[in-house]
Amino acid sequence: MKEDKLDLEYIFKRYLPDRFEREKKERISGEIIENIKSKLEKMGVEAEPMLVGSQSRGTELKNSDLDIFIVFSTKYSRKEMEDAGMEIGFEIFPEGTAKYAEHPYVSGIMEGVKVDIVPCFRVEMNRKIISSVDRTPLHTQFMRNAMDDEMRKEAILLKLFMKRQGIYGSELKTSGFSGYVCELIILKFKRFNSFIEYVSNLKGRLIIGDEDRTSKFNSPVVIIDPVDLGRNAAAAVSEGNLSILKTAAKFYNLNPCNFFFTFDEKIDRINRVERGTYMCLIRWKRPDIIDDILYPQLELSERNLKTLCETSGFHYINGYVNLDGENMEILIEMESGHLNRIEKREGPPVENQNSISFIRKYLDSDRRSRGPYVENGRVYFDLFRDETYFKDIFFKNIQKINFGHNINRLKGEIIFEDRLEKIRETRIYEMFLNFQRPVLPSGEYLNKN
Amino acid sequence: MKEDKLDLEYIFKRYLPDRFEREKKERISGEIIENIKSKLEKMGVEAEPMLVGSQSRGTELKNSDLDIFIVFSTKYSRKEMEDAGMEIGFEIFPEGTAKYAEHPYVSGIMEGVKVDIVPCFRVEMNRKIISSVDRTPLHTQFMRNAMDDEMRKEAILLKLFMKRQGIYGSELKTSGFSGYVCELIILKFKRFNSFIEYVSNLKGRLIIGDEDRTSKFNSPVVIIDPVDLGRNAAAAVSEGNLSILKTAAKFYNLNPCNFFFTFDEKIDRINRVERGTYMCLIRWKRPDIIDDILYPQLELSERNLKTLCETSGFHYINGYVNLDGENMEILIEMESGHLNRIEKREGPPVENQNSISFIRKYLDSDRRSRGPYVENGRVYFDLFRDETYFKDIFFKNIQKINFGHNINRLKGEIIFEDRLEKIRETRIYEMFLNFQRPVLPSGEYLNKN
Repeated sequence: MKEDKLDLEYIFKRYLPDRFEREKKERISGEIIENIKSKLEKMGVEAEPMLVGSQSRGTELKNSDLDIFIVFSTKYSRKEMEDAGMEIGFEIFPEGTAKYAEHPYVSGIMEGVKVDIVPCFRVEMNRKIISSVDRTPLHTQFMRNAMDDEMRKEAILLKLFMKRQGIYGSELKTSGFSGYVCELIILKFKRFNSFIEYVSNLKGRLIIGDEDRTSKFNSPVVIIDPVDLGRNAAAAVSEGNLSILKTAAKFYNLNPCNFFFTFDEKIDRINRVERGTYMCLIRWKRPDIIDDILYPQLELSERNLKTLCETSGFHYINGYVNLDGENMEILIEMESGHLNRIEKREGPPVENQNSISFIRKYLDSDRRSRGPYVENGRVYFDLFRDETYFKDIFFKNIQKINFGHNINRLKGEIIFEDRLEKIRETRIYEMFLNFQRPVLPSGEYLNKN
Repeated sequence: MKEDKLDLEYIFKRYLPDRFEREKKERISGEIIENIKSKLEKMGVEAEPMLVGSQSRGTELKNSDLDIFIVFSTKYSRKEMEDAGMEIGFEIFPEGTAKYAEHPYVSGIMEGVKVDIVPCFRVEMNRKIISSVDRTPLHTQFMRNAMDDEMRKEAILLKLFMKRQGIYGSELKTSGFSGYVCELIILKFKRFNSFIEYVSNLKGRLIIGDEDRTSKFNSPVVIIDPVDLGRNAAAAVSEGNLSILKTAAKFYNLNPCNFFFTFDEKIDRINRVERGTYMCLIRWKRPDIIDDILYPQLELSERNLKTLCETSGFHYINGYVNLDGENMEILIEMESGHLNRIEKREGPPVENQNSISFIRKYLDSDRRSRGPYVENGRVYFDLFRDETYFKDIFFKNIQKINFGHNINRLKGEIIFEDRLEKIRETRIYEMFLNFQRPVLPSGEYLNKN
């Protein structure tokens, strides 16, 4: 492995499609487009098939999917457009699957290549769009003209770099940089290295575009979309992912090397000594709902569980969320799953009349262990708790916890596990232990530089 | 018991000296003063004996001590004054004990009454004084003229009230209200009830005196001393004790009753259920040094142990200090005496260049359990700890802990106990459990009102 050297030829060879793959995809997409055209003609529908996505812009990686849109005239209703689009999709892929983004679409496989056939409306640049899907053909048209081959290679490097750090992709599960955003960045900075240099010293937000347009956005990353000047193309990027980018860029500058572009090696340098903490795993069977709807609810649930921990007196350390084809899972780590029998209960300031009712409430109560006493101008009691185990407190509060609209319905189907020997056997535990952002080469040779 | 009624006659009968005790003390103090006078004459020394303290001001409680000062002319040197004073003291009490405040003095017992014979210098009101002891005769002169019998009774009520709350006495161990301060308060408010009404609604500091004089003091309680207008007579009162007074006053107003003046009943309503916490007791044999020197050092030690707990990752709950004839003791209560094997270590913000060295330091270290990862713009690692038991961390850090000038010398002689079954047998544990401020009557009848 040449992880510790920079060898762009090696990188491109490894991650760009070879001549065989390119020719095969050109042939497949050409055939499908011709096929759609003739079907549209036969149906007398005013619409046009179009290859979109990274493939159409020349910035695709090895084994990428094909995205073919059918762009309908706006004279059709939404339903007419969707019905015709799905009909054609299923004619081409009789075994295909119906999927749902903003419009429904059909996904199929041809000669081992995954192909999505997506109906949308024709819109003009900077005109009111009907849905964000309709914008995609504009991105293709724009980017094809704007980039030369040199810039396409730089954009590919940036995409690989983002991918290595786990911050590539605008879906909510990742909240990262889309391929289109990477390309817009290269349009502005021309060279991958210039951008990395810039972002490694960046304080605060990443902003690209005229100030009179960018100033109305508050997101951590603001990049004006040239095909829709009122839109922030990078609205999906989270603050955490910008932070990861900044840090990774600093380390790339110290030691530019292949490591930062290569990502299918298994990282496993984890020290397996016990952490000595308490963990609990909350799991549901995944309902038939897409990632972009479930993932934000899982994150909300994780935040609300953190709040439950902290308000109940536990000491939260880490949380981790996993969403895969089978399960939705939340792993919570805290210092202990068991509270002291007593809690130190803070009352009002002594100068406040409420201090009287606070003292009255607990002075003769069975819950009183000790007090009242005064610290820093406030009244305190040491009180006995009713519940001391996290598991009990979790189930006692389960009706009050907001897991989000869809997951709330599954409160009765929660699988709760807090036996460490069981948790250690799960995949989420492995993922949690191995989680690392930024992803960095071994410190051993980092320190050599 | 008439705890829940207010019966002043009963209170005064119970706590004021009866005729027999008063006559006996007048006789004893008269005899001692005559005795001193004739000795001074014989020695040809220009000095005058004088009864001081609460006895001299008519505000003494039952079984109080006698304080007799010998007031020397300032023509003598400090050494001459002290030598002559001690000589006379030991002539009167050949079996007496030498004690040390600002000057040395002699303490003895006559017919069961404790008597202190204290030499000091004669000073005039509002003149530069040599030591605070010299001010005491001025307090006697001033207060005798300023108060009538009515006010003396009110002052006695206030002293009893303070005593009941454990905030009576200006020595550092108590940091409360001296008898003289109680009398000054009554001089201002005339009636005990007026003051309690006032203080129950007081926000912030308690200040008595002209603003141009009081404004230069920052203490929680400022009461200008009429015999030395540049002095705050209440400088000893801690903020915590003012808070206790405010709260107790609120409850007295709700239900004025004997409870607030009677204090030798044993309070023991403590629920004995286990607290489930970790406790450690640190103990030294008491060295031959006075309370006012040792007590602040014990408090300093307790604060520094709290800091050690918190910076090491433990969760401090309560601390308690005890100083008696035999021992100096600190009891620390925390959630657990054992830390997790890992700690979540916070690094610099990612935008800071230091984040690079932070990551380099731990990336390949044996201490790394997990990370780096980014939260709220900062880099974190989960690191393994070297030590996880409080006892080990305490002894590892013992040289660094500041216990105060005198106690630092006893670091080699610390007795450390953290077995709960042993701690449960100690007196400090009982005192800790029973500690209560403000002291309040049973909530049972409080709630009736």
